[in-house]
Amino acid sequence: MDLTIFRTSFIAFLEKEVKVKEPQNLYSPIDYILQLGGKRVRPLLVLMSVNAFNKDFNKGLHAALAVEMFHNFTLLHDDIMDAAPLRRGKPTVHEKWDVNTAILSGDAMMILANQYLEVYEADVYKKLMQLFQQTALEVCEGQQFDMDFENRDNVSIPEYIEMIRLKTSVLVAAALKMGAIIANSSDADANAMYEYGLNLGLAFQLQDDYLDAFGDPKTFGKQIGGDIIENKKTFLVLKAQESLKGEDLDLFAKLYTTNTVSTEEKIASVKDLFEKSGAVAAIKKEIKEYTLKAFGVLEPVTITEVTKNQLIDFGNYLMGREV
Amino acid sequence: MDLTIFRTSFIAFLEKEVKVKEPQNLYSPIDYILQLGGKRVRPLLVLMSVNAFNKDFNKGLHAALAVEMFHNFTLLHDDIMDAAPLRRGKPTVHEKWDVNTAILSGDAMMILANQYLEVYEADVYKKLMQLFQQTALEVCEGQQFDMDFENRDNVSIPEYIEMIRLKTSVLVAAALKMGAIIANSSDADANAMYEYGLNLGLAFQLQDDYLDAFGDPKTFGKQIGGDIIENKKTFLVLKAQESLKGEDLDLFAKLYTTNTVSTEEKIASVKDLFEKSGAVAAIKKEIKEYTLKAFGVLEPVTITEVTKNQLIDFGNYLMGREV
Repeated sequence: MDLTIFRTSFIAFLEKEVKVKEPQNLYSPIDYILQLGGKRVRPLLVLMSVNAFNKDFNKGLHAALAVEMFHNFTLLHDDIMDAAPLRRGKPTVHEKWDVNTAILSGDAMMILANQYLEVYEADVYKKLMQLFQQTALEVCEGQQFDMDFENRDNVSIPEYIEMIRLKTSVLVAAALKMGAIIANSSDADANAMYEYGLNLGLAFQLQDDYLDAFGDPKTFGKQIGGDIIENKKTFLVLKAQESLKGEDLDLFAKLYTTNTVSTEEKIASVKDLFEKSGAVAAIKKEIKEYTLKAFGVLEPVTITEVTKNQLIDFGNYLMGREV
Repeated sequence: MDLTIFRTSFIAFLEKEVKVKEPQNLYSPIDYILQLGGKRVRPLLVLMSVNAFNKDFNKGLHAALAVEMFHNFTLLHDDIMDAAPLRRGKPTVHEKWDVNTAILSGDAMMILANQYLEVYEADVYKKLMQLFQQTALEVCEGQQFDMDFENRDNVSIPEYIEMIRLKTSVLVAAALKMGAIIANSSDADANAMYEYGLNLGLAFQLQDDYLDAFGDPKTFGKQIGGDIIENKKTFLVLKAQESLKGEDLDLFAKLYTTNTVSTEEKIASVKDLFEKSGAVAAIKKEIKEYTLKAFGVLEPVTITEVTKNQLIDFGNYLMGREV
């Protein structure tokens, strides 16, 4: 599938719009984090959605930049909260500058994101902003739940799904719906695009949990077993805790609370228990179901089969499947 | 002047709208900081402005809350950056909870502030949001300049005035202009209200600089000489540095770089040099000029003399003058 035109146009637009001005200590970090790259998934989804409804995708560039700016704001503030030293292999903003700079530049990014939408006329602007602010607040709620879960021992799987829905899926969903709003689609179509994004986002996040343990080190991009090393409560962990019994449960608990074995042994043992508990089978089932649900909600949308297939192809590309 | 009705209505509205919900760690700090009190100057200005243009001031309540929510967001994030332990005599959010909570709750406050404006119809909403986002970005720029100035030895007085304009005055100005927009005033009147707020805000901030050194400990509310103890580059300091010569300049520089005298002696000596240098006379002149300019720009505004006098009274009240 050829997304080159969307990608090239978006990058060119970003380069043109995001400029370092005074005070430089406020705007340089913004330029820095936006230049770190990434797949630009969310802005591409805005442009693909505008295009799917048969409108010039260039009309979506401002919204695409708003979404990408907001997404990078969340990365910037999340990196402070996680005390992360690196982002895409480069020093994080709070490392390269300092925490105060990272807080304030992040704040400015949220405002700049909103300002990009001012190019749309009042009715469309208000619709976009209502969705965008609701989504932004949900992302904050998701981040808070994620932090809360670190200090809780009784997180349920529905709670976990709700957390990843808020933290990551709603922005993917909003990107697609914003494209539909800009293209003046029907409300039904706009909502279907949102549901497509929401389910695809959930499938993608669960796949990320799976690949963290079982992915190919050559293609995954992050250290395999990173979540296990950090004792993160992913879907796999919660499912294993729920299903394991007796000695297996004791061993699993021990692996996540003590440091008596090497990191390699820990990862290997935990992965065995993920398999044995049925957590691996369960997560694969969830991923498949959310993906199929995503594709299913596209069916009644009044766009051409070509563009529908383009969205399905993009979903498969995101999920790392052959396209 | 009786502002009781505006104040009572605003507080009741705030109590009704700001609720703690899940995740509580996100929303409790928001409720906490908003309940710390304060003079509620900015929301009152929104309501007075709506009322001045002969509209029901209740129509301004959502915008008033948006402005107060945004203002408290800046306090929350600024307190992190300043590592401030107390706010209005109570522990700051990052002290009572932690820095991560303070960052994320602040982020949510900025979003909530925007959401309160969604009650206005699309055209008014867009006008309000454009002003509000521009103002928000300027406040961030002002905060950045303020932090930059701490590490600079060559800050000029015009740069300082520009910093306080951005950091504090534009939000006062925007509060008044938002009221005018909600009341459907002419653009000329809305802009005049903005200029009134801008000049009043500058006068107020300069007066704050003056009172920090020369205020009455009984009424000022903060420790007298606080800025001097912290070596803050206020208008008085910059003016003294500009005007002092020879031994006086050496003494002034020494007081601001070494700790050879007691805090009391330092404050007394610095205040003498503020007087001797003409910095006191200069700041009094500036305060008077900005105040008169504020009142002057109100003259052509098409509101009744009664409401015009109410705004002037409020200006005098803010400036601590007899009304």
